[in-house]
Amino acid sequence: MLVAYQGVPGAYSEMAARALFPDARPLPCETFEDVFAAVLKKKADRGVLPVENSLAGSIHQNYDLLVHHDLVLVAETYVRVQHALMALPGTRLSAVRAVRSHPQALAQCSAFFAENPRVKPVVWYDTAGAARSLREDAPETLVGTAAIASEPAAALYGLKILKRRLQNRALNVTRFLAVARPGARVPPAGSAPLKTSLTFIPARNRAGVLHAVTGVFAAGGIDLTKIESRPDPDNAFDYRFYLDAAGGAREPALRKALAALAPLVRDLRVLGSYPKAKLPSGRASS
Amino acid sequence: MLVAYQGVPGAYSEMAARALFPDARPLPCETFEDVFAAVLKKKADRGVLPVENSLAGSIHQNYDLLVHHDLVLVAETYVRVQHALMALPGTRLSAVRAVRSHPQALAQCSAFFAENPRVKPVVWYDTAGAARSLREDAPETLVGTAAIASEPAAALYGLKILKRRLQNRALNVTRFLAVARPGARVPPAGSAPLKTSLTFIPARNRAGVLHAVTGVFAAGGIDLTKIESRPDPDNAFDYRFYLDAAGGAREPALRKALAALAPLVRDLRVLGSYPKAKLPSGRASS
Repeated sequence: MLVAYQGVPGAYSEMAARALFPDARPLPCETFEDVFAAVLKKKADRGVLPVENSLAGSIHQNYDLLVHHDLVLVAETYVRVQHALMALPGTRLSAVRAVRSHPQALAQCSAFFAENPRVKPVVWYDTAGAARSLREDAPETLVGTAAIASEPAAALYGLKILKRRLQNRALNVTRFLAVARPGARVPPAGSAPLKTSLTFIPARNRAGVLHAVTGVFAAGGIDLTKIESRPDPDNAFDYRFYLDAAGGAREPALRKALAALAPLVRDLRVLGSYPKAKLPSGRASS
Repeated sequence: MLVAYQGVPGAYSEMAARALFPDARPLPCETFEDVFAAVLKKKADRGVLPVENSLAGSIHQNYDLLVHHDLVLVAETYVRVQHALMALPGTRLSAVRAVRSHPQALAQCSAFFAENPRVKPVVWYDTAGAARSLREDAPETLVGTAAIASEPAAALYGLKILKRRLQNRALNVTRFLAVARPGARVPPAGSAPLKTSLTFIPARNRAGVLHAVTGVFAAGGIDLTKIESRPDPDNAFDYRFYLDAAGGAREPALRKALAALAPLVRDLRVLGSYPKAKLPSGRASS
């Protein structure tokens, strides 16, 4: 089995792919669109996509791709983002002068740069790519150069970890969803409760409709773990909603709720039902 | 009057600051935290912050800063993100081989790079900084080098626009909010209707509480223009909600709704009331 993900080996997305499908081979793709294309064109069996991060928010591009492509959600996982500082073996922490990483990772480690004013951040396309560059560039050009990436990226590219947990805040979690072609054989969920993701545009007359929408779920005693509205990318004057509801779309309670929801909204799409993953435990501690 | 914003001159945040406060002097800051600090320490009278983008989603860092600092929202605006390709005068489009910009801007212009495989994207800290670098670096090192940034950035740094509207999708809008110290004199809103932003953590028993929350607003006929839940960054097992409601917090309808809301939630904070801005008009057209 092949699992497409966006990034290069050592990326957080690859960690999500391995966590969800331990027996599969991860297939690196350049863009999120390429992940969808790989699954649609049967070059991969599953695709793994980040959909929200606890600091940076929902990744709307991937929701847009979910809305516009005929794939279904089949799995969910959370990856704790733990940035490490790494360099070629032999590099001492005190010798580091330049650190390559993605701007978001550099920003999440701003306290380290504030405490070490002689160390300069250098922007790079992605975290794992920054780690890989230390292996690919000529070593003599890399004196005093380090990278910020995941610990598995350090192991993969033979780099030495100079400092673990470099980020300012410990609670940095990314949620990933896995997609498959419709009708894909999904193994039974076992005892894990299901979760269902759906999206819709409320019918006009907003003041009351949102209350009616939540009422449909409250009437069935259905917990909503996510609700988000955003201007519809195809028409700025409509609002599109994303909802995650407890339960599977074929279970009686949710099936009844979806039937009651239909007349209140338009462009309703059930993106899929999948076993609910556990959020990484523990409070934030920096 | 001084208005703090994150970025360098020519940034989209500076465009927002100028649109909201045409008579004020924009004050560039390195980080979002610096924007808050500038206003709190009276180095600036207002701060302008991006809070959501139509493609990239809510910018939770800024919501976190709003929750943790004692500033109030006083204004709102939308800036249409229109990326342009620019270079030193004398550079021809056909001679461009490298383009500097923020990774998100580069990704939003991926169709241009796909059509021009000889042009290499080069990651940079921010869009306006990429434009400025073309003015600061030695010209002989810049042969064939361009940047992706806003059109005002091109004018500011004396660059020639080689191509306008470079991004894949036309509808790319960022919403900005302005903050001030509590008690700041805010000019009367005139005839523009107000909008109020608030945040809270629902009391336990989620299945019903969201319906009760929306019911409070529905009962008052109050339109909700934004609703979003996310794991609380201080405790992953709670959900924090962001809500934008039509009306001012001192108007009777919303005052009544807030009083009814209080027992249903905890950590309720009214972030401020401000004149509602218009979304840029027009459907997406690529």
